[in-house]
Amino acid sequence: MKKVLIFGSTGSIGRNALKVIGKAKGQFKVIGLSANRDIDTLNRQIAEFRPSFVCLNDRSQAEKLKSRLPKGLEVFSGESGLLEFASLESDISLMAISGISCLRPLLKNIKHTKRIALANKESLVTAGSLVFEEAKKQKTEILPVDSEINALFQLFETNKSLTNGNLNRVYLTASGGALAGCKHKDLSKVTVGRVLAHPTWKMGPRITVDSATLVNKGFEVIETHFFFNLAYEKIDILIHRESMIHALIEETDGTLFACLYPPDMKTPISFALHYPDRKKGNCKVNFKNSFSCNFRPIRYSDYPLLKVTLDAAKRNDNSLVILNACDEVAISNFLKGKIKFTDIGKVITKVLEKYPAHQIKNINDVLGWDNWARIKAEELIDKL
Amino acid sequence: MKKVLIFGSTGSIGRNALKVIGKAKGQFKVIGLSANRDIDTLNRQIAEFRPSFVCLNDRSQAEKLKSRLPKGLEVFSGESGLLEFASLESDISLMAISGISCLRPLLKNIKHTKRIALANKESLVTAGSLVFEEAKKQKTEILPVDSEINALFQLFETNKSLTNGNLNRVYLTASGGALAGCKHKDLSKVTVGRVLAHPTWKMGPRITVDSATLVNKGFEVIETHFFFNLAYEKIDILIHRESMIHALIEETDGTLFACLYPPDMKTPISFALHYPDRKKGNCKVNFKNSFSCNFRPIRYSDYPLLKVTLDAAKRNDNSLVILNACDEVAISNFLKGKIKFTDIGKVITKVLEKYPAHQIKNINDVLGWDNWARIKAEELIDKL
Repeated sequence: MKKVLIFGSTGSIGRNALKVIGKAKGQFKVIGLSANRDIDTLNRQIAEFRPSFVCLNDRSQAEKLKSRLPKGLEVFSGESGLLEFASLESDISLMAISGISCLRPLLKNIKHTKRIALANKESLVTAGSLVFEEAKKQKTEILPVDSEINALFQLFETNKSLTNGNLNRVYLTASGGALAGCKHKDLSKVTVGRVLAHPTWKMGPRITVDSATLVNKGFEVIETHFFFNLAYEKIDILIHRESMIHALIEETDGTLFACLYPPDMKTPISFALHYPDRKKGNCKVNFKNSFSCNFRPIRYSDYPLLKVTLDAAKRNDNSLVILNACDEVAISNFLKGKIKFTDIGKVITKVLEKYPAHQIKNINDVLGWDNWARIKAEELIDKL
Repeated sequence: MKKVLIFGSTGSIGRNALKVIGKAKGQFKVIGLSANRDIDTLNRQIAEFRPSFVCLNDRSQAEKLKSRLPKGLEVFSGESGLLEFASLESDISLMAISGISCLRPLLKNIKHTKRIALANKESLVTAGSLVFEEAKKQKTEILPVDSEINALFQLFETNKSLTNGNLNRVYLTASGGALAGCKHKDLSKVTVGRVLAHPTWKMGPRITVDSATLVNKGFEVIETHFFFNLAYEKIDILIHRESMIHALIEETDGTLFACLYPPDMKTPISFALHYPDRKKGNCKVNFKNSFSCNFRPIRYSDYPLLKVTLDAAKRNDNSLVILNACDEVAISNFLKGKIKFTDIGKVITKVLEKYPAHQIKNINDVLGWDNWARIKAEELIDKL
């Protein structure tokens, strides 16, 4: 049985991962679960999977949980506790903590596991080089859980075009998010509820808002760049509302290979956990019904923040750290009803207009600039 | 420069192959061209490609051609001439003769070439085992030109599911042919012109009629069976009007891989000639425009001859030889206006109702039963 640590077990990816593990009787032993503060869900997960270790980010919730738990189960808490939790030895670690707070536990955990199933995007967006350098040094495998990157991984797993010079370009598909078709003038009035109603994927709130601005797709372009060492010029985006085809690769002779599965995260999670085996029981395309796959070119003018994200990526300095921090802060404020949807873009572009450009050399650079940008973003939001 | 023989150079595939070769300056030397009787087209091809050998099936046309040609060019004619032509040594032979008349030259040529780029279906439908046994014995590579089988070949070239047990099934796509949506009661009245107006592919007349009855798709299922040694139960058909995705493979975990290119035969021909290289310059999917790929399950009741073809395939006796012969004879009569579209099915099912079932052991069995069925079919047509 493979020992598994789940970082972010009560979120959307974590819950789906536990469903996949629950089905794969006798193949995985969940040794640890980490969560932010949802002790009710965590408690149910503990009862079902009987881990030896749990970790809660929220210290007061951790105290509450401790009083309820059987003895012999070790509870970590807070940021330092999460780093201790990340030092536990595992065969596979699922990294499904949202945001940049995943970065330190990820870099720590790379030393203590054989495989990272990586669902977190922000760690690659802010520190892609550092993460892959560390993984290489520690000989730790990183498998992408994000469906588009997972699809590319599956395509490139066997296709030789990455190494034989026959790759023309790759296409990531984008549903267009919850606001596709919404008029520019109406964007300032859209409600949180509307933004969170994603047409195809059920995901956490941060990523769902990022899907509406397509910052999320920009992040996936960056993930693709780091995962496959691909130049940004070779990565394109296609609007594909149905989210059936997740990625395509185009060979020099014009032939395309596509990877398809229904929009259900259990499929890429199952792939990342079972690889190189494939397990039955995932949601399948039902060919007994008719279905359509529609594609259209992306209009960058509809998604100004996507362009901002891709421009920042190409600068290869601290701008992605700053962009991500502003995005996290602004979305958090939008979800609390403090700012309008269009203010997310305002905050990001305003902070990125004037920032001291610096190279990112280590994790302290990342966290320092993250902190700098958060303060700037909060200041701006207070003045809005 | 690779020495190339083209069998069927004046047909649709042959002409496209010469376009591909014409573009690939300095890579191929066309040493021989064979045609049925179209000496005007052949003459132009001779002037452009300057082969050393030509072959015409029609002996009187061959005599006409000889009088026009420069000395030093050897002209073969008739069936025996074609077998001599097939004994010429080449690096690659494109087999694009239509119908069962390709079988003997193919079996002969396997001994004299390194690679067959196979566009002919009937040789595999009537003698798939014999063809692949001979290719194995002679260590001759056979690459599929037919777009669906070519797409599967490209998918399986690297995907390991054929050997590692992870293959669930394969899907061949079908446009549905020129008569999709035509009501049953109107089928007896459809004109040759309407049947030949294929929605997506420009092809020769025989295959275009076979595309309307979907006998062609049945033939592709049989090709798939022989090319990849796949059980018939693992091969499905999907209606996909746009002919962009040519085939899909489904892994046991539900993930699908698809191969796409625009419906232009130059792409699979170029693949089969250049393999393992890939050459630029083919028609590409234009992602600057929107496009849709629609899929629906096939209704077998709409295509009774497809069911007849698949049933015959599974009997593993001489029934496919008989079916193909009746189909060739009936289509030839339909194209001449002698019988109605619906008579094609009548002829095939009538002959297949009562036939002496025999195993096919060698090429003489194939040609014997082919001849037997042709006589039966002609008799039936005379009585219609």
